[in-house]
Amino acid sequence: MDLLNINDPSFLKDCSNHDLEDLAGDIRRFLIENLSETGGHLGPNLGVVELTLVLHQLYDSPKDKFLWDVGHQAYVHKILTGRAEKFDTLRKYQGLCGFPKRNESIHDVWETGHSSTSLSGAMGMALARDLNGGDESVLPIIGDGALTGGMALEALNHIGHEQTDLTVILNDNEMSIAPNVGAMHSMLGRMRTAGKYQRAKDDLEMLIKKIPAFGGRLAATAERVKDSMKYLLVSGMFFEELGFTYLGPVDGHDLDDLKTNISYAKKTKGPVIVHVVTKKGKGYAPAENDDKGTWHGLGPYKIESGEVVKKPGPPSYSGVFAETLKTIARSDNRLVAVTPAMPGGSGLDKFAQEFPDRMYDVGIAEQHATTMSAGLATQGMKPVFAVYSTFLQRGYDQVIHDVCRQNLNVFFAIDRAGLVGADGETHQGVFDITYLRALPNMTIMQPKDENEMQHLLYTAYKHDNGPIAIRYPRGGGTGAEMDQELKTLPIGKWETLNDGEDITLLAFGTMIPVAEQAAVLLQEQGISAEVVNARSIKPLDGEKLKEIAASKRFVLTIEEHALLGGFGSAVLEYYHEQRLHGVHVERMGIPDRYIEHGGVGDLLQEIGLTPEGIVERVKYEIPEKQREA
Amino acid sequence: MDLLNINDPSFLKDCSNHDLEDLAGDIRRFLIENLSETGGHLGPNLGVVELTLVLHQLYDSPKDKFLWDVGHQAYVHKILTGRAEKFDTLRKYQGLCGFPKRNESIHDVWETGHSSTSLSGAMGMALARDLNGGDESVLPIIGDGALTGGMALEALNHIGHEQTDLTVILNDNEMSIAPNVGAMHSMLGRMRTAGKYQRAKDDLEMLIKKIPAFGGRLAATAERVKDSMKYLLVSGMFFEELGFTYLGPVDGHDLDDLKTNISYAKKTKGPVIVHVVTKKGKGYAPAENDDKGTWHGLGPYKIESGEVVKKPGPPSYSGVFAETLKTIARSDNRLVAVTPAMPGGSGLDKFAQEFPDRMYDVGIAEQHATTMSAGLATQGMKPVFAVYSTFLQRGYDQVIHDVCRQNLNVFFAIDRAGLVGADGETHQGVFDITYLRALPNMTIMQPKDENEMQHLLYTAYKHDNGPIAIRYPRGGGTGAEMDQELKTLPIGKWETLNDGEDITLLAFGTMIPVAEQAAVLLQEQGISAEVVNARSIKPLDGEKLKEIAASKRFVLTIEEHALLGGFGSAVLEYYHEQRLHGVHVERMGIPDRYIEHGGVGDLLQEIGLTPEGIVERVKYEIPEKQREA
Repeated sequence: MDLLNINDPSFLKDCSNHDLEDLAGDIRRFLIENLSETGGHLGPNLGVVELTLVLHQLYDSPKDKFLWDVGHQAYVHKILTGRAEKFDTLRKYQGLCGFPKRNESIHDVWETGHSSTSLSGAMGMALARDLNGGDESVLPIIGDGALTGGMALEALNHIGHEQTDLTVILNDNEMSIAPNVGAMHSMLGRMRTAGKYQRAKDDLEMLIKKIPAFGGRLAATAERVKDSMKYLLVSGMFFEELGFTYLGPVDGHDLDDLKTNISYAKKTKGPVIVHVVTKKGKGYAPAENDDKGTWHGLGPYKIESGEVVKKPGPPSYSGVFAETLKTIARSDNRLVAVTPAMPGGSGLDKFAQEFPDRMYDVGIAEQHATTMSAGLATQGMKPVFAVYSTFLQRGYDQVIHDVCRQNLNVFFAIDRAGLVGADGETHQGVFDITYLRALPNMTIMQPKDENEMQHLLYTAYKHDNGPIAIRYPRGGGTGAEMDQELKTLPIGKWETLNDGEDITLLAFGTMIPVAEQAAVLLQEQGISAEVVNARSIKPLDGEKLKEIAASKRFVLTIEEHALLGGFGSAVLEYYHEQRLHGVHVERMGIPDRYIEHGGVGDLLQEIGLTPEGIVERVKYEIPEKQREA
Repeated sequence: MDLLNINDPSFLKDCSNHDLEDLAGDIRRFLIENLSETGGHLGPNLGVVELTLVLHQLYDSPKDKFLWDVGHQAYVHKILTGRAEKFDTLRKYQGLCGFPKRNESIHDVWETGHSSTSLSGAMGMALARDLNGGDESVLPIIGDGALTGGMALEALNHIGHEQTDLTVILNDNEMSIAPNVGAMHSMLGRMRTAGKYQRAKDDLEMLIKKIPAFGGRLAATAERVKDSMKYLLVSGMFFEELGFTYLGPVDGHDLDDLKTNISYAKKTKGPVIVHVVTKKGKGYAPAENDDKGTWHGLGPYKIESGEVVKKPGPPSYSGVFAETLKTIARSDNRLVAVTPAMPGGSGLDKFAQEFPDRMYDVGIAEQHATTMSAGLATQGMKPVFAVYSTFLQRGYDQVIHDVCRQNLNVFFAIDRAGLVGADGETHQGVFDITYLRALPNMTIMQPKDENEMQHLLYTAYKHDNGPIAIRYPRGGGTGAEMDQELKTLPIGKWETLNDGEDITLLAFGTMIPVAEQAAVLLQEQGISAEVVNARSIKPLDGEKLKEIAASKRFVLTIEEHALLGGFGSAVLEYYHEQRLHGVHVERMGIPDRYIEHGGVGDLLQEIGLTPEGIVERVKYEIPEKQREA
């Protein structure tokens, strides 16, 4: 059928399994074609086609509530709820969001992006239903990885023991089954062996036979951590002990098996878990055979060959991070790296190739990762915790209580700082300066390019007076020439890039090229702008700030970060502390609202963090300044 | 023996069990006597006397590392490491800390205060040891409640699967055994029944017989949540699946049983869990028979009678919170309350007496609690999440990602905001304004007294335009007269308490009486101070701020909160945004360092947040202001 004609999922009630199979084929073709142009999370969505069809057939959305954990697997749900026509705008500026979004559809009842939140959200909805005497069903759909996050375990504990009516769909991706064959066999031994599940079980056993022998610590660490807990989770035992009714394993691509079990769950009182085994990338060979996670989420690709379209460009910050870390690690055994389930994204997979015993992938566990880094530091090690800005929010108490309070030498490598683009508002890394700089003992820096990046990483490594955070953006550098020798850069010292007499542009990181372009434009209009690379965010460069104050220049701070409590506010605080009340400071940054998805360029344009935006702001301020003078 | 003569624990090596029994008696008497004067965590420490003695006899601290989870049970450890003589200063200003503290002793290798961190810290230490080729033992000592926190579960998952050498001492307090007899029996059925554990098992079964029948949902909810997970945890099964060797249950008051098992653990490779059953309050009848948690942590008491010394005074903020919530709940079924294992501290136990079905104690699970509140709010409920400022740090990502981003009507009742006193630096609630006000959609207010408190709570309840936080301090109110009728107070509007022409003191909450006293002192010195109750922290009162700017008065902001990014910074930001560059603002608050334990009065004195401190600051600023004018 033409997917563009779907308005809502009610038509599914009348569909035979044959109809659904046809529809599944149409949806897969649609996803493979559309995502080859836009990019997106292909693998996860190809894996849940049948599951999503069955859920929408058996339940009545939006009365019944689906909560898609993480949410990148909600494309099929979006198609079935009338959004197929928007897929050419997927993850683009003002286009279809890559995650569930309440303002897109009444069928999106819960927004996600970060993992492991769906059980807690569902529990809230179910408790509300019970107090209100409702009869709707509430169904969190959660992957096996997300289920091992501490937050999800907290929720399981609570749900099981309140005995709330709620059906958890555990989407167990075959791809994440680790080659820990012994444990897998013991899990299968614990699984229910009712005749109707025999086929799914046989399939699993077939799969196990295909798994290569355990291939050494490196490749398997991340998966092992996730999956060893999973063995417990997916065995009925764990859930039944917690008070859940366990149904499964269910073949997630067999409509009959899905319907039988989910229908049974629908009739069952109390908390139920339906363990659905799916195959990521199902129906598209390159994605099915993916053993590196390439097809989890990606940019455009060629359908026929499965070739991923690569854009040429300077090395990524993550790549420079990995290379620099390796260089340092070669001469210092104390350096170890920690990642919460992001070995690929952070670049640490490359570090681990050379130092397999010195990289710890702890799974989706930011809290544990932060405090384990603190523990390493108490013993004189040099732990580098590589984490995305948005995910460090999960370890905030641990940063405060364990790292900063004990003043330990933990080196935070904060990737994806600033706007991240297509992932959108759940993933923007725009609060970390505010929430970190308030903490005693913390140092924060950001490089203007990949060459400065390597030196700042080295500086952080050399820093032995407490925690230090180096924040850097998603994506590629500026193409800067790379020095051969690593060196330390002074903490609390800035760099003047461009002299100027009328104003000072105080910027850092991604805003440096923007400020430099603005200075050129201003020069053309007769305004002479100094550009300062404020790479040390905490502490500030007091000497430079005093010099600027003495010069009576108007100061404009520019940051790709929230204005509230951010870098510009630190500058205001400094001048007030120093009783330099006469300095005219203005601040540009991200306003007090969440910034949605879209190309970073589009988003910066929207906010006005562009050379033209700076020029406009300066010209607005200068006359006033002159009036005051 | 005279405990004051102990310098370090090495003397224990030569002690017979008879010696240790005598010593245990001495330690119990010492604790009961000293804490009757100073207050402190009596129950937990009486429970771990034998355990601590055996640990220090069998291991070599500080080479071998003890990590006391939460840390309030480390008093015996402090006595054995030469700190008995300081117990008269326990939890007092510049006195002995109530938690492990690295600058107090080389035997305190890991600082705690918040729960569930010890496993992660221990894992870091153990990994460092393995990389360095060391042979020291690492032993986290963790209670059954703390073990159910999401962070601890994340750590268990990682430790088990790295197969790191590490011995977890699970201190399972008898007091927290819930009356869920069925589940307890099934746990016992799973427990190892080797002959040597038979006695401990018999003791447990005796205990079960003493437990009254399940007494309804109210009293048992909190315990049930904690303990149902515990049944899984304390059964060998769970740990063995995760790769741990399980030893237990061990009678935590039987020296032989402790020594046998802990010695065995010491020789065992890989992760080991020793399940030790202890009795909180052991050896002091009032504490042993405590069924309300009174003796967990308390102030001074009379030894003979077990009578707790109560100070008369105005009602506590927590008490006003509970009463006001009950009043509102009587007329609105949508109001429900959530607490992460703090029903007593938050006052919600009183709420639950009247509304047992509308109060959810989710256990030590701030992440889940925050997002579950978001889930409730999506369904039109009015969830009130009562949480201490310092513990909300654990739910920060959830506040950002689930509550504020979805702009849901979650009402955060932030207790223990500001300095908390005796618990010290791990518990000070001094970052929440900074980390919350940076979030879009958030409203933050704080009352100046208990009467304003009830109205602000009502205001928060009526607020239906996104999340709102009402923060309030630990302890009693000011004795304000309580209005009979609840009313809403305007958000974004301040209250002028005292007119004045020379300066404006902008304060809120606990700083209002301080500012008022300062105004009196200033008046005596010829300086006329306006005092403004800035109860709306976000949004600010722009109208009032503009009026102050127009008056050309010098402005002093006063907050019991970190200066970095706090309320005063918000005022600076406002004036700059509004292009009111001429206003002379100065800020008083908590400087950029962690504030240790002590009486709140002493701490405020240290920081200068006193009437005299304000007068001094004003007199310093005023001449300058006049110079400028």
